[in-house]
Amino acid sequence: MKKSYKVGIVGATGAVGMEMLRVMERRNFPVDSLKLLASPRSAGKPLTFRDEDIAVEALRVNSFEGLDLVFFSAGASLSVEYAHLAVNAGAVVVDNSSAFRNHSDVPLVIPEINGADIADHKGIIANPNCTTAVTLMALAPLHRAFHVQRVFASSYQAVSGAGARAIHELREQSRKVAANQDVELEVFSHQIAFNVIPHIDRFEPNGYTREEMKMQTEGRRILHEPGFRASVTCVRVPVYRAHSVAVSAEFERPVDPRAAREVIEAFPGIQVVDEPDHLRYPMPIDCAGKDDCFVGRIRSDCALDNGLAFWVCGDQLLKGAALNAIQIAELI
Amino acid sequence: MKKSYKVGIVGATGAVGMEMLRVMERRNFPVDSLKLLASPRSAGKPLTFRDEDIAVEALRVNSFEGLDLVFFSAGASLSVEYAHLAVNAGAVVVDNSSAFRNHSDVPLVIPEINGADIADHKGIIANPNCTTAVTLMALAPLHRAFHVQRVFASSYQAVSGAGARAIHELREQSRKVAANQDVELEVFSHQIAFNVIPHIDRFEPNGYTREEMKMQTEGRRILHEPGFRASVTCVRVPVYRAHSVAVSAEFERPVDPRAAREVIEAFPGIQVVDEPDHLRYPMPIDCAGKDDCFVGRIRSDCALDNGLAFWVCGDQLLKGAALNAIQIAELI
Repeated sequence: MKKSYKVGIVGATGAVGMEMLRVMERRNFPVDSLKLLASPRSAGKPLTFRDEDIAVEALRVNSFEGLDLVFFSAGASLSVEYAHLAVNAGAVVVDNSSAFRNHSDVPLVIPEINGADIADHKGIIANPNCTTAVTLMALAPLHRAFHVQRVFASSYQAVSGAGARAIHELREQSRKVAANQDVELEVFSHQIAFNVIPHIDRFEPNGYTREEMKMQTEGRRILHEPGFRASVTCVRVPVYRAHSVAVSAEFERPVDPRAAREVIEAFPGIQVVDEPDHLRYPMPIDCAGKDDCFVGRIRSDCALDNGLAFWVCGDQLLKGAALNAIQIAELI
Repeated sequence: MKKSYKVGIVGATGAVGMEMLRVMERRNFPVDSLKLLASPRSAGKPLTFRDEDIAVEALRVNSFEGLDLVFFSAGASLSVEYAHLAVNAGAVVVDNSSAFRNHSDVPLVIPEINGADIADHKGIIANPNCTTAVTLMALAPLHRAFHVQRVFASSYQAVSGAGARAIHELREQSRKVAANQDVELEVFSHQIAFNVIPHIDRFEPNGYTREEMKMQTEGRRILHEPGFRASVTCVRVPVYRAHSVAVSAEFERPVDPRAAREVIEAFPGIQVVDEPDHLRYPMPIDCAGKDDCFVGRIRSDCALDNGLAFWVCGDQLLKGAALNAIQIAELI
């Protein structure tokens, strides 16, 4: 095994790409050289990594020569177009887009849950959807102990899940609403300031969005549970960072809140914050910037026989994206 | 039947009280005289009704003499203390608080759903919880057609549900976050600007909040369905006005989205806004100030066999409070 790696990041100037630089710094990821790739309009822009300025290069078909490891975080269509070029150039690809998540020869991995699946990779490893990742961090230890059958979930998703421009849009719209001015729409189809939008990603023929169905399709692969069912409503809320999910989960075996807390507390990467009488439960403003996910409001579900209701929050740019991608790379 | 009524409003200066004045104006409610009652610190404050200024009076034990009809919207403890005094003085009370909602001799009424229950009143009629009212407006027609058994629901509740000061708090906090200043907490226990808070009302021993359990306890009474189960997570979001609820509902009979839309469209007080391909679904900014509730995202629930998922929005100050109270009074 090499001591350090020639690393590339496609989409380096995006919200997740920038976060990857910070995560690699914090975790002392063994970087021998770093190539930052993005669209031509970002070319030349300097980004700082370990106190050094690195100029962004325009992504080209021959950008990957000599690289050991390439992170893709620039949307599914760019991954489809370029990931195989990186693999053919000899690199291992960790893809943050949805492009390969349903490909049977591409492992879909949350290291704490199914890290062993990485061994089967053929050059590409997929990083799961952010809302799915945050939810499964709480669900996986419960699944191991009580065997999950289905979940009903509603998300409260931060704007940064839609990228850096979306953060700007919420800030600008909030300012304009306060000043009684008309808001401008760019990233989101509707005003997001002081509103909630029950629509993330494209609609599927079944009436769910693709974002909503990811919990089921990706959950089945990551939990190794092909019968897992998930009915989800994904909603954008005017929060800058960290997604929250309200979950009702049904299990094969009886589950009580005390046992649930114990198995979650014993699992890496997730913490229990559940003292409602002291007003302590996870909230996005407290979870932003944290590597771990946080679960609270754990209670017996009053509409399910073997059920548990809970509330989970996590920084979707970290566990839902950059951190998980770097953790995958650490396991390769 | 009298032609017009001597009306009192307890809590006239609150968010719901003020809204009642506007609703009575709009609906030409037959008011002979109007007495506005509030705490002593609001006494003397003038409120406008039908272009006339009426001075608020301090609530006293003998405030109700000569009144025919008194609306209470000043919290449960004031209702407990004063409602029976109003009844003893000969008035009918419509109570917007939670004080009497579980009393078997107090009808709990949404006029479109169980208006006939008003006939059983013994002086007091209760108005349901706002989130429950908005959700049941969509659920009641589905229940009549397909017989609901249980729901899993998550709410996205506007700050105005916590009163007029909460609106001010969201506005001030949003301004301070934009200016990088510390926010001040008064109404809410945590920052609400750019955050979501999974906690509304007190916690019950079962881990749910009282707000969350209202959907089940009040739903059973209003739908006349004692076996109805509801697992709810109630969440405050940084929205000024109109609550939203994501619902998965299980029915005894098979239900498909087309039939569901038909029965909802035929029901008074609720409209279907469900053209996702044209980006049309209910959102709080569109529902604020509207009498009707709005339902969209109607789809077969992918984790239930006879299930339907949907998204409902409604102005909780109107259908969830002031409008529903006035509608009850119109039926008396």
